Amino acid sequence: MSETLRAGIVGAAGYTGAELLRLITDHPKLDLCWVAARDNAGKQLADVLPHTRGVAGIGDMTLESFDPAQAGKLKSRIDVAFSALPHGASANICDSLLKAGIRVLDLSADFRLKDLGTYEAWYNKHPVPGRISEAVYGQPELHRDELAGARLIAVPGCYPTSAILPLSPLLEEKLVESDGIIIDSKSGVSGAGKSPKRGSHYPETAEGLRPYGVAGTHRHTPEIEQELSRAAGTAVEVIFTPQLLPMTRGILTIAYAKALPGVTAEQCRQAASKRYPGALITVLQDEQLPDTLWVRGSARAQIAYAMDPRSQTVISMCVIDNLARGASAQAIQALNVSMGWAEELGLPTLAMFP
Amino acid sequence: MSETLRAGIVGAAGYTGAELLRLITDHPKLDLCWVAARDNAGKQLADVLPHTRGVAGIGDMTLESFDPAQAGKLKSRIDVAFSALPHGASANICDSLLKAGIRVLDLSADFRLKDLGTYEAWYNKHPVPGRISEAVYGQPELHRDELAGARLIAVPGCYPTSAILPLSPLLEEKLVESDGIIIDSKSGVSGAGKSPKRGSHYPETAEGLRPYGVAGTHRHTPEIEQELSRAAGTAVEVIFTPQLLPMTRGILTIAYAKALPGVTAEQCRQAASKRYPGALITVLQDEQLPDTLWVRGSARAQIAYAMDPRSQTVISMCVIDNLARGASAQAIQALNVSMGWAEELGLPTLAMFP
Amino acid sequence: MSETLRAGIVGAAGYTGAELLRLITDHPKLDLCWVAARDNAGKQLADVLPHTRGVAGIGDMTLESFDPAQAGKLKSRIDVAFSALPHGASANICDSLLKAGIRVLDLSADFRLKDLGTYEAWYNKHPVPGRISEAVYGQPELHRDELAGARLIAVPGCYPTSAILPLSPLLEEKLVESDGIIIDSKSGVSGAGKSPKRGSHYPETAEGLRPYGVAGTHRHTPEIEQELSRAAGTAVEVIFTPQLLPMTRGILTIAYAKALPGVTAEQCRQAASKRYPGALITVLQDEQLPDTLWVRGSARAQIAYAMDPRSQTVISMCVIDNLARGASAQAIQALNVSMGWAEELGLPTLAMFP
Amino acid sequence: MSETLRAGIVGAAGYTGAELLRLITDHPKLDLCWVAARDNAGKQLADVLPHTRGVAGIGDMTLESFDPAQAGKLKSRIDVAFSALPHGASANICDSLLKAGIRVLDLSADFRLKDLGTYEAWYNKHPVPGRISEAVYGQPELHRDELAGARLIAVPGCYPTSAILPLSPLLEEKLVESDGIIIDSKSGVSGAGKSPKRGSHYPETAEGLRPYGVAGTHRHTPEIEQELSRAAGTAVEVIFTPQLLPMTRGILTIAYAKALPGVTAEQCRQAASKRYPGALITVLQDEQLPDTLWVRGSARAQIAYAMDPRSQTVISMCVIDNLARGASAQAIQALNVSMGWAEELGLPTLAMFP
Repeated sequence: MSETLRAGIVGAAGYTGAELLRLITDHPKLDLCWVAARDNAGKQLADVLPHTRGVAGIGDMTLESFDPAQAGKLKSRIDVAFSALPHGASANICDSLLKAGIRVLDLSADFRLKDLGTYEAWYNKHPVPGRISEAVYGQPELHRDELAGARLIAVPGCYPTSAILPLSPLLEEKLVESDGIIIDSKSGVSGAGKSPKRGSHYPETAEGLRPYGVAGTHRHTPEIEQELSRAAGTAVEVIFTPQLLPMTRGILTIAYAKALPGVTAEQCRQAASKRYPGALITVLQDEQLPDTLWVRGSARAQIAYAMDPRSQTVISMCVIDNLARGASAQAIQALNVSMGWAEELGLPTLAMFP
Repeated sequence: MSETLRAGIVGAAGYTGAELLRLITDHPKLDLCWVAARDNAGKQLADVLPHTRGVAGIGDMTLESFDPAQAGKLKSRIDVAFSALPHGASANICDSLLKAGIRVLDLSADFRLKDLGTYEAWYNKHPVPGRISEAVYGQPELHRDELAGARLIAVPGCYPTSAILPLSPLLEEKLVESDGIIIDSKSGVSGAGKSPKRGSHYPETAEGLRPYGVAGTHRHTPEIEQELSRAAGTAVEVIFTPQLLPMTRGILTIAYAKALPGVTAEQCRQAASKRYPGALITVLQDEQLPDTLWVRGSARAQIAYAMDPRSQTVISMCVIDNLARGASAQAIQALNVSMGWAEELGLPTLAMFP
Repeated sequence: MSETLRAGIVGAAGYTGAELLRLITDHPKLDLCWVAARDNAGKQLADVLPHTRGVAGIGDMTLESFDPAQAGKLKSRIDVAFSALPHGASANICDSLLKAGIRVLDLSADFRLKDLGTYEAWYNKHPVPGRISEAVYGQPELHRDELAGARLIAVPGCYPTSAILPLSPLLEEKLVESDGIIIDSKSGVSGAGKSPKRGSHYPETAEGLRPYGVAGTHRHTPEIEQELSRAAGTAVEVIFTPQLLPMTRGILTIAYAKALPGVTAEQCRQAASKRYPGALITVLQDEQLPDTLWVRGSARAQIAYAMDPRSQTVISMCVIDNLARGASAQAIQALNVSMGWAEELGLPTLAMFP
Repeated sequence: MSETLRAGIVGAAGYTGAELLRLITDHPKLDLCWVAARDNAGKQLADVLPHTRGVAGIGDMTLESFDPAQAGKLKSRIDVAFSALPHGASANICDSLLKAGIRVLDLSADFRLKDLGTYEAWYNKHPVPGRISEAVYGQPELHRDELAGARLIAVPGCYPTSAILPLSPLLEEKLVESDGIIIDSKSGVSGAGKSPKRGSHYPETAEGLRPYGVAGTHRHTPEIEQELSRAAGTAVEVIFTPQLLPMTRGILTIAYAKALPGVTAEQCRQAASKRYPGALITVLQDEQLPDTLWVRGSARAQIAYAMDPRSQTVISMCVIDNLARGASAQAIQALNVSMGWAEELGLPTLAMFP
């Protein structure tokens, strides 16, 4: 397949929407043809995203409202839609787009959890439960085969991406025990979205580092467990501790897992290197350690492993950009794979440094 | 002309070098074929720029040393070279590259000043004074015609770019007086380069805003004056006050100039819009004001004007990314123009936001 | 006078309120006996200012509502009140406190402008115009004599403080011309207050520097002009350009004024040193330049002067902490002076560094 | 005891030295009488710490060199000395001060480890091994009795303080298992000191979060284990993972420990509240979580506990300011205790917020 797709974004006014704009603009096989929003419908993009002002073909696009009843007409304008709406609001719109024959990448949580009961326990009543089974969890390196030709792709969450990537090869290869895994994750504040709130007010964010959603209360917990269970072939329960720190983009996840007897850090590196032969994951060697700055703005993940010698605990480390690899760039990567294109097509492989 | 050029970077290990790497990698008509450095010669790129680790075709490039005597051989490997070396060190290397028939974009100050005496008053003895006259000052919007086919392009400094862009149309159109111009500029600290020093040590940079090089002592003063004098058609002297603030990338320049009688802010906007019809400068309208965040990572400049009603003073505002539009992206834009390509070819037109 | 005063804060839940808490707690002659708030009345301090949690005698204070009708009763609890309410809301409350015989330091703009028409042109209808004449503009170094025994003190704004301090000695001593003064001021975002908004949302504030309120539209303009006119002995009009930068605390103001013939930078330094013999202003010598970091958290201002040799323009530079010297610490300093105490009593004279 | 002590600082030019200056200046029973430095001897304080410029009695103090042979003379000038020198350099100087009859608070690591072999395994050959046994580990809440009258106090490290405080009550009360403890700590970059280096260069620190010294290689590991072993009454080995984040001050430590059967988070809170009745530790209640911003600049620690319900793991959280509670303020607190003064005497109990 080598055609160009006409692309649309619903929820274009938020941060993942803005990141999609940037990435689609640079993609050789995607043409941005439609942008929609809920609260800002009727405005020009430049009026809600001032960095687009004066950018030819972007800044003067009008954010449309989207009436699911008219999804049929939209089919004449776009082939694929990215939904950057919040969970709950996204599912119905994805459904109407799919009915109109439009491919969908859903960046919300609505189709990530395969178990309806789990979804409803952590979120709300599911608006379109019948669509869950057809959705493919869009982590490209780990679900490559399922993605081929997929028409509904549930793009993974930011924290889950950073936890699943380093741990999956270890669990798949039985290098670590599947219970007792501790996941200590730190995120930049863009993950909390575009709406101003106390938790992202500059004077109370700069020089502030704080945990939140501790002890199994964060909604990304079941998503992480679903995917680690898949990797382990058995039910996995984790301790997940998210934290916010004073930077805009970036997640560092450090996961602690008990090594099976005799396992070395080098074996972990080899397992990951073998599992991730693609262009967008760097498995660091030897004593190299990652830094969120080194992946900022890119689709890349950096992964490293160390072994605590006394306790035989594997320390897995992973950095990603939460808006890029943790959301919008991974969405495009998943689309690339589903279309049979090179997975890195059009994506920034190199961070913006510094 | 539509050929692809083989490109090289000398001084690839620094910040403008790293930015060139990012931009060249995404450019459809440039192939990166050679990287060189002085202190880090012999190392792999990934060892000095860890964000390149694992990036196919980049991270494992070896930084070569460059012997001017062997520039001839280099001709078989590259067509164009970007020099991101410090002033003083750059001129001789540019000279040897030119002699070998290689086009040169010099990001140092060595060929920016057309007057040898001025150069030697502000810098050192010029290593290759004979080359000064052939160098084209590479501000693409203002030197478009001279750039056509240019083989030695002196890429403007970051502060000068942010001062020249908003003021030149006003001086050219005689909207403001040419004397008494005050230029108050604030820059992120990446402009001070990659070598750790007190002035960019994190604990003494965060929460710190400070002037430096005040009262006509900063080396960018004569460069600004050269270009504003060109625009005004008469000798212009300015007051230039640079300041450093706690962010990595970005310059905001606010310039104050006395309006000629009857001139309005709207006339200033129109003059700039007419002068800058290209893809990479946004002239803001009405009450819109710029923000460095809105151009970060891009080749774009945003320009705005306001009129102080009581004093009839034009307040000109310009934001750029000092490493992109203020250095590496402007270098590529100048190359694009010199090659007859679209000026924005391969350049990020949209900021990384947020 | 050497008694201890019982102090209260109305508007204690905001940033200047929080700073007052910190400073009053360390003051040897002030006992905090009453805290009040509008929106948060009934809550404990620790619930709205979590840094006070567990702080003996502070965190468990209850924010009271304040009924002006009951100001009389309050007199039995406090001798002096600091009002950290917004302008408009503050004046009536100050009035009722004064009527009850309580000294008042008003940190709002309500009593700063001596001309009623000017106040009403820039703000709203004044709630208590009859009080304006009795209010003393609480810049301690410049209004020391008037402050003695004052019962209603209008604490200066943050930007005005940073502009008035460096310029007043020059105007008083006729070292600079009184017209054509340009004041380019940059502030940390805590000045915008505690309510989350787009302009202080972390992801859009970090790496962002932006002007606002340009061309004579910012409300601090008439306050600056009132005080500079007082210093000059003639009406002064200025160009004032405020800007926000990514840090929490700190203002750097750079002012440009035409020197009278023959004036030197050294004369400016001497004039300021003579004018400010007190403990809390540092006049930098020779080539020394200020940094906001060097005054953070303290009551100190650093002032420096340079002369642009070609244009004979004095470049005046001043740094303060906008919440400390620009608000709460200056309020306490003014109270100290009004009480006849050492002006620096109980105030941090040394910045928190780094 | 109510006398005033004459205090000195050796190593005054660094960050913990600067913090000591700030705190001693505000202490009612300490008079700063002597400052010394190695590299900067002969300079005025204002020349190496520009925030002291113009501060009466501080900025114009001369940094003296310190000749151990002349410690005797120093006795006539000071009663107590704080050593803020690096480990290795500090021990001999402390020894000479002690010999002269001067009390010593050593902020280096030289006297923290009670086991000589451990010290020499992690650092170098100990310069004064004979002094180790007389040194008191200066964590005031946990070593209160030993501190009474102590003349050589080893002030704890920053990371150890943040780990020991929350975990000690749990181990002492047998609420958690003593093995398998994981300590995930994140620190602001001021902990790396005042010398500019790559790891604290602003452009590579902002927007960067990175682990270092992982898998038991950081020197604070044995110090943490020594103190936790003391609390547990048995040898404790931990996994310690330090990380640096883009802020100046602050540490958040999250520790994971297996709860003994039936233990609740509330029991942990009660144990800590009972253990820490003093003025400077806040044990958060219920769902309250800490933030480094809420202790910045203060001697306070905030501690919180949560229980992961499925794995019965206690998640202990502690925030401190690494330069204050993690170094200089804790030193003064230890001195206060050793003198029989209130432990919080002269110390900031309230953070600088925001």
